[in-house]
Parts: sequence; C-alpha cells; structure tokens
Amino acid sequence: MSRVKFLGILVPAAAVGGWFSGILYEKKRHVLINVSSHEKSSCACVGKYDKWPGIPFMSVSAATPISDGLDKSVAVPGSRTSQIMKYGFPGMSNIRSQRDFVLSYDQRNRVPYWVFEHLTPESIKYAEDVDRSKSEFHEDKSVHEMFRSTNKDYLGSGYDRGHMAAAGNHKACQQFVDETFVLSNIAPQVGVGFNRNSWNRLEKHIRKMLRVYPNIYVCTGPLYLPRREVDGKMYVKYQVIGANSVAVPTHFFKIVVAEEKSGGLHMESYVMPNQPIDDNTPLHSFQVPPEAIEKASGFLFYNAIPRTKITTINGRKSTWV
Amino acid sequence: MSRVKFLGILVPAAAVGGWFSGILYEKKRHVLINVSSHEKSSCACVGKYDKWPGIPFMSVSAATPISDGLDKSVAVPGSRTSQIMKYGFPGMSNIRSQRDFVLSYDQRNRVPYWVFEHLTPESIKYAEDVDRSKSEFHEDKSVHEMFRSTNKDYLGSGYDRGHMAAAGNHKACQQFVDETFVLSNIAPQVGVGFNRNSWNRLEKHIRKMLRVYPNIYVCTGPLYLPRREVDGKMYVKYQVIGANSVAVPTHFFKIVVAEEKSGGLHMESYVMPNQPIDDNTPLHSFQVPPEAIEKASGFLFYNAIPRTKITTINGRKSTWV
Repeated sequence: MSRVKFLGILVPAAAVGGWFSGILYEKKRHVLINVSSHEKSSCACVGKYDKWPGIPFMSVSAATPISDGLDKSVAVPGSRTSQIMKYGFPGMSNIRSQRDFVLSYDQRNRVPYWVFEHLTPESIKYAEDVDRSKSEFHEDKSVHEMFRSTNKDYLGSGYDRGHMAAAGNHKACQQFVDETFVLSNIAPQVGVGFNRNSWNRLEKHIRKMLRVYPNIYVCTGPLYLPRREVDGKMYVKYQVIGANSVAVPTHFFKIVVAEEKSGGLHMESYVMPNQPIDDNTPLHSFQVPPEAIEKASGFLFYNAIPRTKITTINGRKSTWV
Repeated sequence: MSRVKFLGILVPAAAVGGWFSGILYEKKRHVLINVSSHEKSSCACVGKYDKWPGIPFMSVSAATPISDGLDKSVAVPGSRTSQIMKYGFPGMSNIRSQRDFVLSYDQRNRVPYWVFEHLTPESIKYAEDVDRSKSEFHEDKSVHEMFRSTNKDYLGSGYDRGHMAAAGNHKACQQFVDETFVLSNIAPQVGVGFNRNSWNRLEKHIRKMLRVYPNIYVCTGPLYLPRREVDGKMYVKYQVIGANSVAVPTHFFKIVVAEEKSGGLHMESYVMPNQPIDDNTPLHSFQVPPEAIEKASGFLFYNAIPRTKITTINGRKSTWV
C-alpha cells in the first residue's frame, strides 16, 4: 500500500466492540483506578481516558462505592487488561497487570518473559503535567523477595535499566509513566548505542505507526540466543548482574500487531542484539519471522488469531514509512 | 535418630487421609486408567494399586461407564495427581500429568522445569513382567512441535537422555515405566560418571529411604548456574543440542520430603553438577539448603507447608544410613 493510501485512512479511530460485557464489575474497578489516580497523580487520568476509543472508561460514576480487592492477575472482560491482551496471553506465569500494560515475570532470570501494551493515538499523547523525570525505578513488591530484582543489582553493572513497556508509550498520566518504572518491567540493556539509540528508534517507529493505525498491540521481551563457538558446538551465554543474578539478555524482541481501519491486521516483528548498533542501520534489517521469536522464547504470541489472517512485512521496509 | 529407632518404625504404611473428596469423579477416572493399563500393558496395575496405602484405587468398579476427556492438566482431589502434588505446585506452566508423575515443561529450554513423584515401598517394587528394556524414548505429542524435543536432538550429541522422574521409581507397571521415557521428562545428562553413576546413586539412595519412610515426595529438575569468568563477571553458559536447541543444564537438583510415620517431615535437597563425579564422593557432600535451589530455579518448592515444619539435614549424612 502506498503512503498516500495509508495517510488517507488517518481518520478518528473507531471504537473496538465487544469489550463491554464486564461493565458492572468494571464500575467498581474504574472508580478504584480513578480515585487512586487522582490521589497519587496530578493529572486527570479520567479525562484522558474519556477520549480513548474502545476503552470503557466512560461509564465511571464517582458515586459508586469503592471495593477492596482489585484482582490484578485476571483479565476481566471489559477491563483495560482484556483490551491489552485482546489477542491472547502467551502464557500465564506470574502475570502482573499494571494500569496501562501487562507483563509475565520470569522468576528465574528476574526480568519479564514478555510485556504487552495497547497503544492508540490518544494514549501516547503527552499530558502537560506529565514528567518522566519525576518517575523513579522501584522494586516490584508483589514479586517474592527471592526472585525480585533491585536497583542495587543494576548499580555499577554498566547496564541501563531498560524499559520493556516503554515509558514514552504511557504519557497520558503521571501514574502510568511511573508504573513503567517498576523493576519487573525492566531488563539490563546496553545504554549507549542500544537503549538510548536504536532501541529507542524502534520504540519511536512503533509510535509513528499510530499515524496510520488506530490501534496497536506491542509485545516486548528478552531473548537468550545460542551462538556457535570455536569447538563447533552451540552455547547460550549471558551475563548475570547483582546479588540477585539478574540475567542480561543477549537480544530483545518486539512483535507489533496493528489494526487497520478496514479490520485487517498488520504485523511487524523485530529482534535486536543487546549491543551498540550503528544509528544508520535501517530498522527493517532487524525484522525476523515471528515464528523465529516464538521458537526462541518458548511462547506463541497473538495466538488468539490465526497467523494466516495477519499480513507480515518480514525483512522489508514498512510500506508506509 | 539412630538406625535402630528408624528401622523400628518400618511398619505397614498407614493410609494418608484427606484425599477422598473426589471419589465420585474418580470412579470414571480409575476405570479409564485401569482399562487403558490392561489394554496397553501385560501387568495387572489394578492389583498393584490395591496394595498402595492412601491411594484411592480400591473403589474401582469395572461396571462404571467409561468417560471420555481425562483432564490431564488438573489435580482432581482424590486423584493420583493430587496425591503426587500434595505439598503444592511450584508453578502452573505447561503441566503434564502422567499416571505416576507430574511435570512442568520449560518450552524455552525444551526440558522440564520440575518433575514431581510420590513413592511408597509398594510403588517401587518391580512387577515380574515389567521390563525397562521394552520402553522406548518418545516425543511428547502434547507439546507444541515448535517447543518439543526429539530423539534426533539427542542423537550424536554425546549426552544421555536423562530421566527426571527415574524409570526405576515406576516399576509397578510396564505402562508407568514406559511413561517415564516421554521426552518431556528428559534432559541431557553426561552419561559416564554422572547419569550412569552418581546421579543413579542418588536415585537409589532415595528409594532406600522407603525402608524407613512410608511416603516420599521427590522433586527433580535442571539448573543453569552462573560462574565467575576471568573478567570477574558472572555468566550463565550452557550448551544447546539438536535442531530444537535442547538446553544442557549445568546442574540438576532433587528435593525430597519424606513423611515419618509419626507425621513429622524430613527434607533432603541435593545439587549435582552435570559432569563426571568420582563414585567415592559421598552423597551428603552435594546437599544444599533448599532455598539455594529455589533462588536458582525461580520456584518455591513444597510451598503448601511452612518450611519451619520440616526437618532438614543439609550438609550432613542422612542419620539413618
């Protein structure tokens, strides 16, 4: 498809249907979220949500009584979690559902298995009062101490605390940005040349896709890929840092599914080595078939839809950029 | 406790209570198991089971109609699975419940995360017609092809197909032995000096414990332990074999919980390197605190009971041997 044609479908996003079955339960949840958002953050997250297509935050009534026990590990139909996980959970190990992203935590390697985000043109807009520099990396207290990574593990390691759910994707609300700084969403990344450069370029590319697509689903995670050594045998080798032996992945992946306004699905999947990359290397050179990521990670991604129903652009430049 | 005292409690095992709540459902299941056992195996597994204390195989009625849909992934109260998993599931990833053991499969590394067995003096007795040499290693067809290990992966690798649930623990019935040869129960082990020697010694040691304890629970699995290299940094490094990149663990663990007749619980936990070990190295020198295994594997084992209620013998010889 030509750039013109794609730009031609840059219209206000249509609401995604079918996520409203849990409204009754949701009312309590929304109030909970909204109240805590108001308490902890200066921005009006409720207002932000009202603009989002397809997300049932319009049904909030401040008069609804507040419930305890927000079950953060279950995808309630109609909830933000079920919206984010629309195309299926790759697995159910140690699920942590934050307000704007969902992750599965690898207790052995102390980094995520995978992190899922749902982006819209509205969701990635900066709120005026949102400031990333106010956010602080913090331990995930919901992870058992034995398996939890800490700031101390990263200190002096030479690695950045790299976001899986990108901070820049969750700027609608200070609390959403803050939540991306939880260490269960973080993995050790090479800073200069990777996290601060090409990985960031990839994150930006995905946000740019929202100029064309009304809804984008992003799955991000680490890989530990084998390499042939001089003895001719294949080995997986990765550094571990800190007292908690946090694994330094050899590579990272992103698999993106973008919903076209016409209902079609477009997939782009990338693997980047966790090392300095020349800024001029084109992003499409990191594209790989999604099956390669699945085989290496041990997960089937977007398994709620047959792969045959998705158009992939493996190994060539995104047609619209 | 002295050897004499322990031998003094070598009496017929008392039935373990509290596993009979699912009898109604179980009736169908037992018939299913018994019928299929009779069909596929020459030994009378029903008869074997009748002798087992605490396992509700006595309630079998051949007249009960046979149901389809034996759910192999759920621990039904009263089932063999719930007996084996009495002290808790370490995790719920890709559970495979065989007739005499239960495992969780690591789709990334193509070996188990952990395997649980429940042993009694009766369960480990050889049936006359059971012959290990009739068993063949076979793929686990219930694992997605993308994540499945095959015999070809092991062929020419130099590694044994090492049992996690030991074949020697399941000799009551040909079918039980056969099922330990499913490749989801297997991990690459060094043959001479390890699998065929010290690892086998450890398996035998655990079976010998049944002279004293009426019920023993064994959890077995692989570890990928970091090592400091010359650059002063810590690295995890392991070989992968075959087209499916089956991980060769650096170490293996066994954590045993033995029920004393008095109701007390006794724990022994071992870590052995996947390399040739001198046959004269005493087994107790491989004992480690269970927490070390938990931290390295990413799982909490026997989490249904407080660790304070278990007597451990870390780092010293089993008192009764």
